[in-house]
Amino acid sequence: MNRAMIRNILGSVLEIEAVLLLIPVLTALFYGENVGWYYLATAFLCFLTGWLFRFRKAKDNVFYLKEGCVITGLSWILMSAFGCLPLFASGEIPKFEDALFETISGFTTTGASIVPAVEELSHAALMWRSLTHWIGGMGVLVFLLAIMPSSGSSHMNIMRAESPGPSVGKLVPKVRQTAKILYLIYFGMTVLEVVLLLFGGMTFFESVNTSLATAGTGGFGIKNNSLLGFSAYDQWVVAVFMILFGVNFNVYYLLLFGQIRKALKCEEVRVYLGLIIAAVGIVFANIVNTVGNTADALRHSVFTVGSIISSTGFATLDFNEWSAVARTVLVTCMFIGACAGSTGGGIKVSRIVIAIKTVFKELNSYLHPKSVRKVRFEDKPVEHEVVRAVNVYLITFFVLFTTSIIVVSFEGKDLVTNFTAVIATMNNIGPGLNLVGPTQNFAHFNVLSKIVLMFDMLAGRLELFPMLLLFHPGIIKAFFQKSTIKNT
Amino acid sequence: MNRAMIRNILGSVLEIEAVLLLIPVLTALFYGENVGWYYLATAFLCFLTGWLFRFRKAKDNVFYLKEGCVITGLSWILMSAFGCLPLFASGEIPKFEDALFETISGFTTTGASIVPAVEELSHAALMWRSLTHWIGGMGVLVFLLAIMPSSGSSHMNIMRAESPGPSVGKLVPKVRQTAKILYLIYFGMTVLEVVLLLFGGMTFFESVNTSLATAGTGGFGIKNNSLLGFSAYDQWVVAVFMILFGVNFNVYYLLLFGQIRKALKCEEVRVYLGLIIAAVGIVFANIVNTVGNTADALRHSVFTVGSIISSTGFATLDFNEWSAVARTVLVTCMFIGACAGSTGGGIKVSRIVIAIKTVFKELNSYLHPKSVRKVRFEDKPVEHEVVRAVNVYLITFFVLFTTSIIVVSFEGKDLVTNFTAVIATMNNIGPGLNLVGPTQNFAHFNVLSKIVLMFDMLAGRLELFPMLLLFHPGIIKAFFQKSTIKNT
Repeated sequence: MNRAMIRNILGSVLEIEAVLLLIPVLTALFYGENVGWYYLATAFLCFLTGWLFRFRKAKDNVFYLKEGCVITGLSWILMSAFGCLPLFASGEIPKFEDALFETISGFTTTGASIVPAVEELSHAALMWRSLTHWIGGMGVLVFLLAIMPSSGSSHMNIMRAESPGPSVGKLVPKVRQTAKILYLIYFGMTVLEVVLLLFGGMTFFESVNTSLATAGTGGFGIKNNSLLGFSAYDQWVVAVFMILFGVNFNVYYLLLFGQIRKALKCEEVRVYLGLIIAAVGIVFANIVNTVGNTADALRHSVFTVGSIISSTGFATLDFNEWSAVARTVLVTCMFIGACAGSTGGGIKVSRIVIAIKTVFKELNSYLHPKSVRKVRFEDKPVEHEVVRAVNVYLITFFVLFTTSIIVVSFEGKDLVTNFTAVIATMNNIGPGLNLVGPTQNFAHFNVLSKIVLMFDMLAGRLELFPMLLLFHPGIIKAFFQKSTIKNT
Repeated sequence: MNRAMIRNILGSVLEIEAVLLLIPVLTALFYGENVGWYYLATAFLCFLTGWLFRFRKAKDNVFYLKEGCVITGLSWILMSAFGCLPLFASGEIPKFEDALFETISGFTTTGASIVPAVEELSHAALMWRSLTHWIGGMGVLVFLLAIMPSSGSSHMNIMRAESPGPSVGKLVPKVRQTAKILYLIYFGMTVLEVVLLLFGGMTFFESVNTSLATAGTGGFGIKNNSLLGFSAYDQWVVAVFMILFGVNFNVYYLLLFGQIRKALKCEEVRVYLGLIIAAVGIVFANIVNTVGNTADALRHSVFTVGSIISSTGFATLDFNEWSAVARTVLVTCMFIGACAGSTGGGIKVSRIVIAIKTVFKELNSYLHPKSVRKVRFEDKPVEHEVVRAVNVYLITFFVLFTTSIIVVSFEGKDLVTNFTAVIATMNNIGPGLNLVGPTQNFAHFNVLSKIVLMFDMLAGRLELFPMLLLFHPGIIKAFFQKSTIKNT
């Protein structure tokens, strides 16, 4: 395994994190908060470690999918380990495991918090939490690719490991250009949301934080009651942007270059919007009587469904108190998730569509045993390899899901709490039901459960395999074997 | 589609049911119960309909997998429709949908009951309920194959549709012989259980009923408190036999013919027993403090785990009151189910093993991208087609599972009730948790939910596809198209 290359890239990731940490430093400076020093110290530590990691350059820049996975897995763990330091050292989050949980929850855009009262946190801490969402949404390695000198096909192996969805579509032939365009669209949409939110009465600080958390489909709130306290207009803006950030970014690329018809034909986005409309319909019908006002009920329905299916996790109402069918629909949305190629989490709409089409194909094969028609998606036949990958992904998902639930259940909490805590972390949503409902937090879990949920957040964000591979004996062996593997 | 052939086979199925209905008639005669007349009348009606169905013979006996599926699906619906008549007509179950639910629950060996107090039922009704379990356990069509004159490969298409598991292993080259041997083993083991139970203080009637329900892994009790009231010895006997009937019958065939070493090497059975030991361990550790006595705790643990994983559903304790981890382990067992080729339900151990091995193979493929090693099961490489079938089965399972939960949740019952009601019916277990726990019953569901659960019971017992195909537009069209399809 090309260890020197892995070390170099991890170094770059830490240097980027050092630069990002300067933003909470500036925030602290602006608000005159002493905690700023902790962020500055961490930035310095990050930079130093990164510099040491990059000191001895790798002899060759070539690496394969397994290295791509190892880099991705280690990057995210390392980023979180450094990122939690200021929260812990400043005493704002007293326990180390909680600070790590909060930071992983941030970077993976989960938004599951262990902070009981976020309004007591410093502005710097709030800004840092929101920022982890933003950088985690599109991926730090994708960012790295955008600024790194290009070196051919190797980079595709990183992109493949970090980008969500069953198959990675490059927008343009060059990986570097693709990464740049993605980040430009991402940045542009975030700025647009900041501006629009300002019109609804939010302060600049509130608007920036909310937009960063929306863009990454994260969901860390800056108020104890999440988005409840803001104006109806601002809630609508956030609702729409949550849904928009769950859309496959290819569509925005197509729109940007005037290919409107092609963009409108995107099957995944159509199904995604269809699912949202169906879910909103059911939820609306179920809450309209309790909420009273039709306009309010509609806003809360769109907001909640958009928040859950895009895996953001913001809340305007405590949906844990809704009817069984409304909650069931929300839990189903938790499983489905957003589009591939978006910043959202979940199994992804495209995987669900391909899986369901596979079922129909199977039924047809009973009727026409000799037919060899392929499953079609996005107007193209789906390659056998992609169908297989979707199947294996789903099975891996359910194996990890079940294992996690069993381990967490040892704590003795009720079944709905355990079930939704695991799905809300694995699919990077944030709140679940009962003890992890939108008015609750994750602080009450014991350390073992928190470790499981942290692993699930990382596994879910990185599409399972990079994290699972880190614990594969073959990978560990390859990593510690010296010369022989280095040259392969 | 060969409609005449389908009609003929359905006729035979009804004639078999007519004969079976004579057993509750004899029971009623013995106990001097008037309800016997209803069973006699139904037997007559069954026979007459069967005779009419068989009146015009099919010109050719050839049919394909799609006909096999249609025959299987229709047979089970028809059997249940006729089988519920005496329960309904006698007034012992006042509502028709409840009588149908109870009968489908019987034939599919689910054992989910809508009867609030079974001890008030007549002996004839109890016997009929137990008998539906027994005939449903091995399958009425398999029975038909055992007594029908052989006609080559066509019969394999029935066997494939009715037998549980990812791939149908014929014990001997001839389907008819295989069916005969299976029924002989089944009958022998049932008789053995009857005899053993008599030693523990059960009456002959109790012993026969309990054995029939155990053999089919059904779970209809003849006492309101299921097996609680019987002796510890009898509970142990039932516990062991529940586990034994969940074992792949191939193993018994091998044992019968002295191939003991080959039988002991069966991977599926080893995993099945390993899972039981692990589950019993966790449950035992969790209940030993509340139950008090170690011996009692062990018995209740083995009984409950065996009852759930074999999909029987008998109970000696109200496991709904156990700790979260014990209940989570039981729910996991509900998903897994018994071995393929047994009378048990569930996803089946072999499918789970193949699926998990597929995940590991995928992880290995990251390490060795060019390796083409196949998944191995039972010491043989698993054909690609079987892996694909397992994947598609699992996806279909979860699609149907999710859809069912959403529909049932419209009733407004709590999430754990809906979740476990669907899994307990789809995997033919019987009791679930909360409102469908072992001390509860299914009577409280509305008609829509009951229809969904009835469909799930049938779909689960027939391995999903035969039931889903009945609603496939292509099959319906083919069925009603006359001459053109007849000859294909």
